[in-house]
Amino acid sequence: MTANSYLTNGWTIQQWRDTQSAGSLDDALTRINELVSTFKSYKANDPAWITVASADQLAAQFAFLESLNKSPLDLPLYGVPFAVKDNIDAEGFPTTAACPAFEYNANKDSTVVRFLRQAGAIVVGKTNLDQFATGLVGTRSPYGKTPNTFSDKHVSGGSSSGSASVVARGLVPFALGTDTAGSGRVPASLNNLVGLKPTLGALSTTGVVPACKSLDCVSIFALNLVDAQSIFSIASKFDKSDCYSREFPKSPLTKFGSKPTLAIPSNPQWFNEEKNPVLFEQAVEHFKSLGAKVITVDFSPLYELAQLLYQGPWVGERYDAIREFVTTKPEEMDPIVYRIVKTAENFSAADCFHFEYKRKALLRKIQDIFANIDGLVVPTCPLIPTMDEVAAEPVLVNSHQGTYTNFVNLADLSALAIPAGFRDDGLPFGVTLISEKFNDYALLDLAERFLALSPERTLGATGISVAEGDKLPSSATTSSNVATHIPLAVVGAHLSGMALNWQLHQVKATLAEKTTTSPDYNLFALPTNGGIAKPGLKRVESGGSAIAIEIWNVPIANFGEFMAMVPHPLGIGSVQTLTSDWVKGFICEEIGYQTGASDITEFGGWRNYIASLIKRGKAKPF
Amino acid sequence: MTANSYLTNGWTIQQWRDTQSAGSLDDALTRINELVSTFKSYKANDPAWITVASADQLAAQFAFLESLNKSPLDLPLYGVPFAVKDNIDAEGFPTTAACPAFEYNANKDSTVVRFLRQAGAIVVGKTNLDQFATGLVGTRSPYGKTPNTFSDKHVSGGSSSGSASVVARGLVPFALGTDTAGSGRVPASLNNLVGLKPTLGALSTTGVVPACKSLDCVSIFALNLVDAQSIFSIASKFDKSDCYSREFPKSPLTKFGSKPTLAIPSNPQWFNEEKNPVLFEQAVEHFKSLGAKVITVDFSPLYELAQLLYQGPWVGERYDAIREFVTTKPEEMDPIVYRIVKTAENFSAADCFHFEYKRKALLRKIQDIFANIDGLVVPTCPLIPTMDEVAAEPVLVNSHQGTYTNFVNLADLSALAIPAGFRDDGLPFGVTLISEKFNDYALLDLAERFLALSPERTLGATGISVAEGDKLPSSATTSSNVATHIPLAVVGAHLSGMALNWQLHQVKATLAEKTTTSPDYNLFALPTNGGIAKPGLKRVESGGSAIAIEIWNVPIANFGEFMAMVPHPLGIGSVQTLTSDWVKGFICEEIGYQTGASDITEFGGWRNYIASLIKRGKAKPF
Repeated sequence: MTANSYLTNGWTIQQWRDTQSAGSLDDALTRINELVSTFKSYKANDPAWITVASADQLAAQFAFLESLNKSPLDLPLYGVPFAVKDNIDAEGFPTTAACPAFEYNANKDSTVVRFLRQAGAIVVGKTNLDQFATGLVGTRSPYGKTPNTFSDKHVSGGSSSGSASVVARGLVPFALGTDTAGSGRVPASLNNLVGLKPTLGALSTTGVVPACKSLDCVSIFALNLVDAQSIFSIASKFDKSDCYSREFPKSPLTKFGSKPTLAIPSNPQWFNEEKNPVLFEQAVEHFKSLGAKVITVDFSPLYELAQLLYQGPWVGERYDAIREFVTTKPEEMDPIVYRIVKTAENFSAADCFHFEYKRKALLRKIQDIFANIDGLVVPTCPLIPTMDEVAAEPVLVNSHQGTYTNFVNLADLSALAIPAGFRDDGLPFGVTLISEKFNDYALLDLAERFLALSPERTLGATGISVAEGDKLPSSATTSSNVATHIPLAVVGAHLSGMALNWQLHQVKATLAEKTTTSPDYNLFALPTNGGIAKPGLKRVESGGSAIAIEIWNVPIANFGEFMAMVPHPLGIGSVQTLTSDWVKGFICEEIGYQTGASDITEFGGWRNYIASLIKRGKAKPF
Repeated sequence: MTANSYLTNGWTIQQWRDTQSAGSLDDALTRINELVSTFKSYKANDPAWITVASADQLAAQFAFLESLNKSPLDLPLYGVPFAVKDNIDAEGFPTTAACPAFEYNANKDSTVVRFLRQAGAIVVGKTNLDQFATGLVGTRSPYGKTPNTFSDKHVSGGSSSGSASVVARGLVPFALGTDTAGSGRVPASLNNLVGLKPTLGALSTTGVVPACKSLDCVSIFALNLVDAQSIFSIASKFDKSDCYSREFPKSPLTKFGSKPTLAIPSNPQWFNEEKNPVLFEQAVEHFKSLGAKVITVDFSPLYELAQLLYQGPWVGERYDAIREFVTTKPEEMDPIVYRIVKTAENFSAADCFHFEYKRKALLRKIQDIFANIDGLVVPTCPLIPTMDEVAAEPVLVNSHQGTYTNFVNLADLSALAIPAGFRDDGLPFGVTLISEKFNDYALLDLAERFLALSPERTLGATGISVAEGDKLPSSATTSSNVATHIPLAVVGAHLSGMALNWQLHQVKATLAEKTTTSPDYNLFALPTNGGIAKPGLKRVESGGSAIAIEIWNVPIANFGEFMAMVPHPLGIGSVQTLTSDWVKGFICEEIGYQTGASDITEFGGWRNYIASLIKRGKAKPF
């Protein structure tokens, strides 16, 4: 416990950053040098690393950090070490894609690495993978078979085997992977990590060796949720140079409701595995205990879509990515990877479109599933295979492992793999939360609620437990930058069941609360002039009462449509509620209640007033 | 001029509908029977028709009309005849796709035909086309080469040759075509018609023989703009059964600004044609005279994209659509069409993805072009080829004709082909307006302004001129259903150059007008409480003045974001302008100006009041 490496082992981003920014730049560099020297000492026996940063490379990166000429306070990843899967370019490092003959020296950073380095992070090494990111096992590499961090006999999972391994062991707080078919999720599950597979196009793939270019994602491995979210928010920026990059919406969904509807497979596929189903059941029970409504749905369209990935022409993307290499140097490739990529030759362009139509038809069915739910909860992978099992059936085991991951990018969904406990043999189990595109933040929020059930959980394979490590900063989900709804206080004809309530439904608003205003208001029945009877709310300095209101959440994008229906003399302003909070709400111009209106404050609300009218037979209000 | 056919010749939808709904159902059927009998009498010499409706088929359609049990007033196409390209299914009619051996009997309507028949329209026949919609010439059909309606020596254009021909001759007021590479635009141009190539997925392609399924559109041929828009608004509905169908936005753009920016090619391609460039120049001058800013842009990315359509793997879609037929009955196909479809066998799945990446990369460049413009203006096609020219160089001439059309669907753009005058040889010339997806209504509006310059233009080849035929109903572009912006009156710190004006820019609002309120308002300087100085507008019954305001157009989808920034005691209500119109605008609760506020009505506006403060050195307002 004296070596620096042990001191930093299992540190989260925040721990790294606080320590690094507390001292001098030289101290920070020294700390990273010491960290990296521990990698080097066991590199020969650690297949997780393909390349470890040299002292010169580290010095150059700290020089770059200095050149940014910014306060450590302005660099959210100041001096924080991270690892990069070796199919992602980092300037000055070779990129091998786990194929020595394919190696080239990256003369610039991939876009995502650049964003992270501009935020202060330091690349400490490149990690092993299933060659050309083709595999979910982590054993298809001439650089060695990365073992599971909990058991040498089991696989680490792939293709991002090395990135998962170095994070799980606490060598670095986070690492980049890639995820086309599940490569960022399966290794997370097998190593008790958080694995965020972002929405397609959220993170640039410029500078990444393509697997299936139309489906590739850069993925994030972290020990806890807060680190995963922090890296995601730094790295997810539009990149014009990547033709698949997409602008992330300005106001994405950041939270499902308090009682989300989650779907699990009515027809789960476990391939004779017996331990994992028990943990999956338990996870489902946990979601129920959080208030989620869990329904079962027929997963057939998802399974069918999953199978298209390797049985269809998408393997042609893998072929095209290394077309020259695969045709001229087949002997340099892992034989299984070669065999898979080579199947692309069986598919014509016409087949390609034929399967694309199949995919589109399946997407309609999948849209139907998502129309009624917030997300799916699935086992991240059905199995925790041993090295021997993979060696015996390299393609079959791999294919089983993709059951719950292969369909996700083909269906343009977001996914988050999270830990879900341990089996009695000490191996970790994980589940994946899946939702529609751009729901990455909402998935993180949902995961936070789930992981809060085991606040003392250990991170990766470090044995370390960091309380609050999964607690997301509340600002991320409540800042007005990402507001999705405007709470609106309604006081009259828009109340539930009243004449104009349909307008709220038309703009897809939902009732949040029935309450009252603060005791600062008068209410007037306005002259109807033959139209629908309406009240006007008047804020007063004295002599006010609490007036009954309903608060409706109006989707921010539909607010304009609602606004267009608000007539003179009413308007939307700010109304103070019983709890003294200000919300948007109906107000009234003075001219509205000046003439011909009656003060109905004594009724305490429009509904009571209307009831009294009906009782007295005085008026049919509508 | 005695036969009924001559009486109805050149009738627009409105003329047909008014006449049909004025009489009995029997009268309406008789009128259609008489119309169709005239088609039959010359069918042998009219290659435009492949099938003409039988008396039984017409009777059955009128029986269906009766079964709808609706008033003619509720059926916008009551008894209106139309023609359907023979690759689109209409129940009870054979579908041939211009290949006799491919013929099958359609046992149900295509979705678009169903929508139109449910609106009251009557299918009177199926029209000729380039076989399997493969061509832009209209001569690749065993049913004959449809001639141009202005010259027997020239082609009608394809692939929707027959649909254009029957509309241009005034036999029917509108017809359906399809448009993958330009088949709905080129024949419109060559026959002096309006040809709307809707946004991909706006009109369902269920029940259409696919050409390139991922790129196919059902298109609309009409004599004038109002008819094209009317059919578009009836037929453009989401269809779940079509996996390429898309929901049309609830609030699409319906109008470009009064001075739109339009781009023309800096490097036009005319292939030695000399007459058409003169008319194109003239059209461009007309757009300038309307106030458009016309810029030239490098069309290279668009030309490159256009070439991918036939030189790339998309021909694989045509192959897949008739895979069994093309492999088993090649001798039954038009030899040129066969040769083209057969080239699909040269492309592998890997090639397919390779070209898709090229397309995506070109789209980035095309997005850059569209970032600075409202739309493109291009010649619909560079040439008006003769039958002989096409026979001599069937592929080359076809390829030239696609210069300005082939890229449109590959780039997911909307397009509208419109007439643009006549050459000295009496042949018509046309231009196409192209904009981003879902801008179909805005293109129609832009075309209305252009065609208003020649209000006495003749329709198709009918020689008939119908005044106002291109005038779109104002309701279509101003109804609140399709509102895209909310005009907002600002009166204080949001005025141009003032402290909160940035909030309007943040929500992408644009200044529409500087004006005043109606003379019914007072203005108060509210107590600042240390914040930004703001006024409060108070509507009064007497003693009011006109107060200076600015009206800003706020995108309706961003209104909520703006609303969230409006603080108590201000709100957004309704404000009456100088012209007595009501617009949304800033209002103020009574409590805001009750205490500590000063009446500044005499200044006529916030800007004057601030100026006076500065002049008196009394205060730095912000």
